[in-house]
Amino acid sequence: MPDTAINLKDKLARFSEHWSPRVIAEMNDYQFKLAKVQGEFVWHAHAETDEMFIVLDGALTLEFRDRSVPLSAGEMYVVPKGVEHRPVAAEECCIMLVEPRGVVNTGDATKGEYTAKNDVWV
Amino acid sequence: MPDTAINLKDKLARFSEHWSPRVIAEMNDYQFKLAKVQGEFVWHAHAETDEMFIVLDGALTLEFRDRSVPLSAGEMYVVPKGVEHRPVAAEECCIMLVEPRGVVNTGDATKGEYTAKNDVWV
Repeated sequence: MPDTAINLKDKLARFSEHWSPRVIAEMNDYQFKLAKVQGEFVWHAHAETDEMFIVLDGALTLEFRDRSVPLSAGEMYVVPKGVEHRPVAAEECCIMLVEPRGVVNTGDATKGEYTAKNDVWV
Repeated sequence: MPDTAINLKDKLARFSEHWSPRVIAEMNDYQFKLAKVQGEFVWHAHAETDEMFIVLDGALTLEFRDRSVPLSAGEMYVVPKGVEHRPVAAEECCIMLVEPRGVVNTGDATKGEYTAKNDVWV
């Protein structure tokens, strides 16, 4: 059990790669991850789980096939399982994700340049 | 599926009671809750689950039997299941909690003035 809290800004300062989530904590079988994103991600869905996005800094749009949901710092959205989505950020945006351990960032999309190594801690 | 994001400040503005968590979102069988806290809570533990605290505004101390962990805005801590803890805040502090649906705020402590109604949404 750690002696100190997890400081989100300190953790964010420790990596710079885009679309490459870093685990900062676990709660039961769930993980809290930080990511820096910019540009358009790939369309994908997670068949087995919902996925929570919260914007810490900057702005993100969650594109769905039938709508787009803009998020600013201090805003969150839960993408339901099985729903295709594509995160897009015009400028660099820092986000926190909450999802079960083992979730691959590109979900059901063919593995490609955006598929990040899983379970990388910072 | 909602058309808009969940704005944490907007949700916080909609209630004022202390130690009375409000649910703002669900992800699988987990809930995201907001709470305003001030003063000393009761010592308690959650035998079945870890519990995540993140401070949104103000400062909180998580007291354990063998240590105290201070948290400021932008800091988080996961209290492991079964570990006795007591949140304390000298001044009003706004926090987000993540835990499975159905968790009672006072855990294994005898139900008392601090035991809040569960599953209250805002």
